Amino acid sequence: MRVHQTKLEIRTTGRGFSNVTAAVEAAVRESGIVTGLCSVFIQHTSASLVIQENADPAVLRDLGRFFADLAPDTRDWEHDDEGPDDMPAHAKSALTRSSESIPVVRGRLGLGTWQALYVMEHRARAHTRCLVVTVQGE
Amino acid sequence: MRVHQTKLEIRTTGRGFSNVTAAVEAAVRESGIVTGLCSVFIQHTSASLVIQENADPAVLRDLGRFFADLAPDTRDWEHDDEGPDDMPAHAKSALTRSSESIPVVRGRLGLGTWQALYVMEHRARAHTRCLVVTVQGE
Amino acid sequence: MRVHQTKLEIRTTGRGFSNVTAAVEAAVRESGIVTGLCSVFIQHTSASLVIQENADPAVLRDLGRFFADLAPDTRDWEHDDEGPDDMPAHAKSALTRSSESIPVVRGRLGLGTWQALYVMEHRARAHTRCLVVTVQGE
Repeated sequence: MRVHQTKLEIRTTGRGFSNVTAAVEAAVRESGIVTGLCSVFIQHTSASLVIQENADPAVLRDLGRFFADLAPDTRDWEHDDEGPDDMPAHAKSALTRSSESIPVVRGRLGLGTWQALYVMEHRARAHTRCLVVTVQGE
Repeated sequence: MRVHQTKLEIRTTGRGFSNVTAAVEAAVRESGIVTGLCSVFIQHTSASLVIQENADPAVLRDLGRFFADLAPDTRDWEHDDEGPDDMPAHAKSALTRSSESIPVVRGRLGLGTWQALYVMEHRARAHTRCLVVTVQGE
Repeated sequence: MRVHQTKLEIRTTGRGFSNVTAAVEAAVRESGIVTGLCSVFIQHTSASLVIQENADPAVLRDLGRFFADLAPDTRDWEHDDEGPDDMPAHAKSALTRSSESIPVVRGRLGLGTWQALYVMEHRARAHTRCLVVTVQGE
């Protein structure tokens, strides 16, 4: 068994979803690992990871609105140092994922047909987000 | 260290919880791994994984109602190609888990006394759901 | 590659957040593993894990209130054997994490600058919570 670790930098465009499947898939290919696990970790608490449908863009729009209603900017948050989009970003991160573990099957990410991995940017403005991809297996 | 990977097919009965602990435990036993990690991944975005109490069935009923209220079928979802239970299924998947990592301790799943792993089916009708179980350790 | 597994007992003080980063970091150091993955698992369904901002304590207060509003004690829960804080604890666990996987980078937890790992106690009273830390890598 071996371990292969890569850091990825993802430029988001403000609130919304960035499909990072191809970038993570490239790290898996680079590792040469055929059977194992690919763990993706995001080093932030105002952006997060989520696996979602890759087909209809309306799914992502619905999800964005759904989370905006769950944790609205207009709530009376105590922590608002960086503006009204600061604390809802932390709340949405708590509700989604900081890490995601995807099996490596025959040298590729073992995602289902309709699955993609997204970075969900919760801040209003564009950010550069760091992911650590750790592939383990043989 | 070794890696052992198995695919499980779980037949759900529509909205609700299927306890998959025994099936995953069997994959761990089969692996012969004594100390390590068992990662379970669900290859769908309208069903998900959750670890919950295994004792009182009222917990699962409460959880079902709780998530139905958080992401109701009656919300004005844009994505409704497959019916009113389509988009709430994606929302509930985003709120729970696509992957779960459980330690392997002395050749068994290191769950707490009251824990079980469930597939949470979010669609109204029965589905066959694919899980990939990856056990790594020694 | 090697695997190193440790059990940690964390004493919570009732509802709120316990920063367990230093304890998990100690387990990583003890493992001697330089590159790999550290998986943390909580053996309970009424306390959970979350990675959050480590700087402003107001973030944790906001998060506590946010989850209390999402899953209030006053909701008409069916499962209330252990009191009004019983079932909301399970709901909040379902919404946050039972396991978290953090990369090990140069022998340390590869967290971002502002990240810490917390046990989120959902029960009103203090509890002892068991974590299993599994470090894999080389």
